[in-house]
Amino acid sequence: MPITLTDVQAAARRLDGVANRTPVLRSRTLDALVGAEVFLKCENFQRTGAFKFRGAYNACAQLGPEQLERGIAAYSSGNHAQAVALAARELGSRAVILMPEDTPASKQAATEGYGAEVVTYDRYTGDRVALGAALAAERGLTLIPPYEHPHVMAGQGTAALELLDEVGELDTLVVPVGGGGLMAGCATAATQVRPGIRMIGVEPEAGDDTRRSLAAGARVTIPVPRTIADGQAAPTPGELTFAVNRRLIDEVVLVSDDDIRTAMRHAFERLRIVMEPSGATGLAALLAKKVRAGGRAGVIISGGNIDTARFGALLAGPGPTVG
Amino acid sequence: MPITLTDVQAAARRLDGVANRTPVLRSRTLDALVGAEVFLKCENFQRTGAFKFRGAYNACAQLGPEQLERGIAAYSSGNHAQAVALAARELGSRAVILMPEDTPASKQAATEGYGAEVVTYDRYTGDRVALGAALAAERGLTLIPPYEHPHVMAGQGTAALELLDEVGELDTLVVPVGGGGLMAGCATAATQVRPGIRMIGVEPEAGDDTRRSLAAGARVTIPVPRTIADGQAAPTPGELTFAVNRRLIDEVVLVSDDDIRTAMRHAFERLRIVMEPSGATGLAALLAKKVRAGGRAGVIISGGNIDTARFGALLAGPGPTVG
Repeated sequence: MPITLTDVQAAARRLDGVANRTPVLRSRTLDALVGAEVFLKCENFQRTGAFKFRGAYNACAQLGPEQLERGIAAYSSGNHAQAVALAARELGSRAVILMPEDTPASKQAATEGYGAEVVTYDRYTGDRVALGAALAAERGLTLIPPYEHPHVMAGQGTAALELLDEVGELDTLVVPVGGGGLMAGCATAATQVRPGIRMIGVEPEAGDDTRRSLAAGARVTIPVPRTIADGQAAPTPGELTFAVNRRLIDEVVLVSDDDIRTAMRHAFERLRIVMEPSGATGLAALLAKKVRAGGRAGVIISGGNIDTARFGALLAGPGPTVG
Repeated sequence: MPITLTDVQAAARRLDGVANRTPVLRSRTLDALVGAEVFLKCENFQRTGAFKFRGAYNACAQLGPEQLERGIAAYSSGNHAQAVALAARELGSRAVILMPEDTPASKQAATEGYGAEVVTYDRYTGDRVALGAALAAERGLTLIPPYEHPHVMAGQGTAALELLDEVGELDTLVVPVGGGGLMAGCATAATQVRPGIRMIGVEPEAGDDTRRSLAAGARVTIPVPRTIADGQAAPTPGELTFAVNRRLIDEVVLVSDDDIRTAMRHAFERLRIVMEPSGATGLAALLAKKVRAGGRAGVIISGGNIDTARFGALLAGPGPTVG
């Protein structure tokens, strides 16, 4: 296995005092709706607004002084960009982030706000993996991938470690799956700390590459998914993440974009917190009864980066209010 | 004085295990924008979504068995309605809430969801105080007013007590002022526990009745304010609340509806939490530099009850993004 519980525990020590120990939210209303005791681990309150900072920092913190001196590279249009930018700054290094030209200005500004240099490319003609490798080679930068790296995976697992440390026993842990790094880290930690815990992955209906891959017993590639859950639009699981997840995931459930909208609205109106679409898929799975809950269920709320304009536009779409 | 620190401390014991001990949020970004260490006491995470539950429960819990048996009445179109409804249910009693006919269906449903009976009246022809008194007399109910009651004021003060208990020294405490119950309770507690603390009230520009009253040295009545901060639309301070507030408030600052929108947007996009307009006025005062902050500043975020439709409509109005 690419990572062990020991790696996640070491990551937790590195992140101590740097990452937020995010709150675990409870709601009587939610418990009654779901028929379980639900524990929401709120990574939307993590620094940079998403769990990604955990993995990025854990990876960057293990670079040598020369690597930090030369700088760090990443490609991302999403939460990994800000995560690497802030991790680099915290370590006295500097990040160069490769972003598609059409990335919303607010995301580019937020990344630059953490002191990173942003380099743009045309997503229709450029290959970000090749461009990222070229950029890194040219400038002597160390590339930190968004999930396909043991240090990144181990860092993400600290979210589950903290949750279990705070709430004790859980019967089920529900985790959004995109590239699979969050799940790989959380499953590694949770199944060791609490043997018998059921690990439930959640994917958007259109982005069910991990579910298909588990059924096929090997990594499957699907067309680039069309879903509002942009953080989970990976067309295929990572090689390292899948090696972990194929052994540790008990089940992957799927949620529709409407399920996600309903969860975002519930989070806003009843929990008074903001979830981005990918961040809300775990809650969506519970509210839409896609998970056989009962007992004590943990859910990783993976992020909350969405501006009010996009939130309004998304919520204006269909999707009934629950509860 | 109508209440003392001892009353607030007794309220805190009554509320222990019943009200949420709400989280205190910090934000590096906010601190940098404001130039102070800011501590947000998040009553939007209180049961029923607002601080009102503290006062309502503290008042209801001091009723005798016969009063609880007969039931409790309140008039409110806002957060006090749900607060009294839930407090009554928690105490094995039952509430009858007088609401304007044109109250949004969602608020009426939420109040009924806590087991209360809702009685409606025409706000243009009916006098809610007279109607409330008649209803209470007719059915033998005990009326719990939204702020003009020592037990209600003492209950609200527990928010400040918890905040100071958690964060220690504060130079300033910023509190939204409507009828003045939250401020009266918080000022009573805070100035006793931390002598020298500066108590700053915040009113919407159109609803500056307390500021005018302080300047005049007596309660002033203004036309019913037109502001998005509907929880602070009282045209005159309460008699009991003003008796406390005139002695303990250091300054009242005013925020515009645009300042409030900007704060709500900041809360959503940067803090990932939902504030209703009245709940955001303290944050608005800091972001708009209406408060000479510096040092350590506490802010009571008083509530988060707003649906996604109204939020979207409000935010579509003017108001630049901060930070």
